[in-house]
Amino acid sequence: MYTPEQLQEKISSKLKELPLYGEPAGLYQPIVYSLEQGGKRIRPMFVLLSNQMFGGNPEEALPAATAIEIFHNFTLLHDDIIDQAPLRRGNKTVYQKWNTNIAILSGDTMFAIAYGELSKSNPVLLPNLMDIFTRTAIEVCEGQQFDIEFEETNNVTLENYINMIRLKTAVLLAASLKIGAIIAGASAIDADKIYDFGINLGIAFQLQDDLLDAFGDQSVFGKQTGGDIAANKKTALFLKAIEMADSDTRMQLEQYYTAGDVATEKKVTQVLSIFEKLEIKSAVEEIISEYYNRGMSIFNSISVTEQQSSMLRDLTTLMLRRNR
Amino acid sequence: MYTPEQLQEKISSKLKELPLYGEPAGLYQPIVYSLEQGGKRIRPMFVLLSNQMFGGNPEEALPAATAIEIFHNFTLLHDDIIDQAPLRRGNKTVYQKWNTNIAILSGDTMFAIAYGELSKSNPVLLPNLMDIFTRTAIEVCEGQQFDIEFEETNNVTLENYINMIRLKTAVLLAASLKIGAIIAGASAIDADKIYDFGINLGIAFQLQDDLLDAFGDQSVFGKQTGGDIAANKKTALFLKAIEMADSDTRMQLEQYYTAGDVATEKKVTQVLSIFEKLEIKSAVEEIISEYYNRGMSIFNSISVTEQQSSMLRDLTTLMLRRNR
Repeated sequence: MYTPEQLQEKISSKLKELPLYGEPAGLYQPIVYSLEQGGKRIRPMFVLLSNQMFGGNPEEALPAATAIEIFHNFTLLHDDIIDQAPLRRGNKTVYQKWNTNIAILSGDTMFAIAYGELSKSNPVLLPNLMDIFTRTAIEVCEGQQFDIEFEETNNVTLENYINMIRLKTAVLLAASLKIGAIIAGASAIDADKIYDFGINLGIAFQLQDDLLDAFGDQSVFGKQTGGDIAANKKTALFLKAIEMADSDTRMQLEQYYTAGDVATEKKVTQVLSIFEKLEIKSAVEEIISEYYNRGMSIFNSISVTEQQSSMLRDLTTLMLRRNR
Repeated sequence: MYTPEQLQEKISSKLKELPLYGEPAGLYQPIVYSLEQGGKRIRPMFVLLSNQMFGGNPEEALPAATAIEIFHNFTLLHDDIIDQAPLRRGNKTVYQKWNTNIAILSGDTMFAIAYGELSKSNPVLLPNLMDIFTRTAIEVCEGQQFDIEFEETNNVTLENYINMIRLKTAVLLAASLKIGAIIAGASAIDADKIYDFGINLGIAFQLQDDLLDAFGDQSVFGKQTGGDIAANKKTALFLKAIEMADSDTRMQLEQYYTAGDVATEKKVTQVLSIFEKLEIKSAVEEIISEYYNRGMSIFNSISVTEQQSSMLRDLTTLMLRRNR
C-alpha cells in the first residue's frame, strides 16, 4: 500500500513528465502554466485511492488519473472565460494572462491530451473507460450550461440546483473513483457502488462549499465570507431560503438578489440575517448529512475490508469535516 | 461496392440519428445547427472511400467517419470565435447566432461526442485509432495557433506557411484516410502510405484554395475574388511573391499588406498586378503540381487494384481540378 503522500508524489511527477514543450510555444505555455498551478489534485487522488482500495497497481491507473486531472484543468480554462474570472488559485486566469483565443485553443489541446493519456490505459479496458470518461465530459458541459442558464432564470428550484451541481461537480469525482476501480479489476457492482458514493459525496462537498461561503470562518477558509451573496449566486442556501420563507421575506430576498442599488456589505449582512432567521444553516447541514450518509452507506456495502477502504474513507471525512 | 452517393447517404443518416436532443437544449441546439449546415462531408467520405478501397465494410467505419465530421465541425465553432467570422456556409456562425460562451461549450461537447463515436469502433483497433485521432486533434490546434501567430509575424516563410496548412488542414484529411484503411484491415505500410498521400493532397488542396481566392472565376467559385488580399492574409501567393520580388516590389507588397489607408479595391488590383508581373500563378501551380504528383505517386504504390482505388482517385482529381 502506498501512502497518500506517495500517491500525490506519483501524480506530481507524472504531470511534470508530460511532453508539453512542443511548438508553437504560445499554445503549450498556457497548458504548463495551468497544470503548474497545483490545486489539491483531488480527482487523480480519487482514481489512485479507489484503485488501491480494490487492490490495483497505481502505475496502471496513473494514465487515467492524469487524464482526469488534465480534463479538469481544461474545464477551468474554458469556465474562467465564461465566468469572466480574473483569478484562479490566486494567479491570473489563462484568458486574462494571455487572451480568450489562447484560452480556447490551449483548452481544446488539453482536452485532446487528456484523451491521449487515457488511451495509455490497459487496451482491454479502454472501451469501457472511454465510455465513462466521455459521458462524464458531456455531463460536465451540461452542468456548466445549466449553471449559466440558471443565472438568468427565476424559477430555479433546489432540486434543479442539486441536479446542476451533480453534473458540474459530482460526476467527475464519481467517474474518478469508478475508473480507478475498473482499472483495479473491481466487479461491475462495486464499480457502480463507488460511482454512486462519489455522486452523493460530490453533492455534499458542493453544498458544504456553499455553506462555508456564507458561514465559514474567513481566517480558516481563506475566502471572503458572503462572496456568493454579493455576486447574487443562487446557491442551495438561497434556494432553500426561498422554499422556507413566507411571501414577504421571499420578496425581500429576491429583491436583494436582483437589485443593484444596495451596498454590497449591507446586502450581505441583511441576507445573512434572513438566512439565520430561517435557520438555513442547519437546514442545509441536514441536506448535506443526508447525501453524506447515503454515500457512506453505499461505501460501506462495497466488498473490501475496512483496512482496504480506510485511506479513501479518511480523505473524504477530512474533506467534508474541514472547518466544521 | 457502394457508390459515393450511397456512402454520402449513410453519413447523412448517421448524423441525423445522433442523440442530440438532450437537456439543456441551449447546449444541444447549436450542435444540431452546426451539423445540419451540411458542407461537403469530405472527411467522412475519405474515411469510407479509403475503407472501401481496402475492402472494408462501411458500417464498421461509420462511427469513425462520424467522429471525424463532428470533430471537424467542433473546430469550426471555435475557429469562428477566434477569427470573428460572421458567416459559415452562408449562415450565421454559432457564436454570432448565440454567443461566445455557447460556442465554446457546445464546441467542447462536440469534441467529447466525437470521441464517443470513435470509441464505438472495433475495440481491438481502438488504441491505434485513438492515437491517430488524438495526435491529429492536437496538430490541428497547433496549426490554428501558428495561423494566429503568423498574422502578427513579419518573417513568415513559405515553408512555415506550408507547415501551418499541413497541421491546420492536411493532417485531418490524412488521418481520415488512414483511419478508414486501418478499420478495413490494411497493412501498416499501406495505412502510412495513404496517410502520406493525404498530407500531400491536403497541402495541394489548400494551395489551390489560395490560388482560387486570387485568380478564380468568381461566378464558378462563388467567393469574392481577392478576399485574402483585402484581408491582408499572407497566403502562399503573397509569400511566394515576397520570395521572388526585388527589394522595391517587396517593400511595395509589404506596404499594401500593412497599410490601412489604401482603398480595398485599388489594393486588390495593384497586388494582383504585382502577382501577375511575378508570374505567381504559375509558380504556385507548380508547387501544387509537386505536392499532387508526389501524393499520386505514393497513392499508386499502394497494394490495391486500379478498380479498388478508382473512386477515391476520381474524387481527389475532381476536387483538385474544379475550376481549373
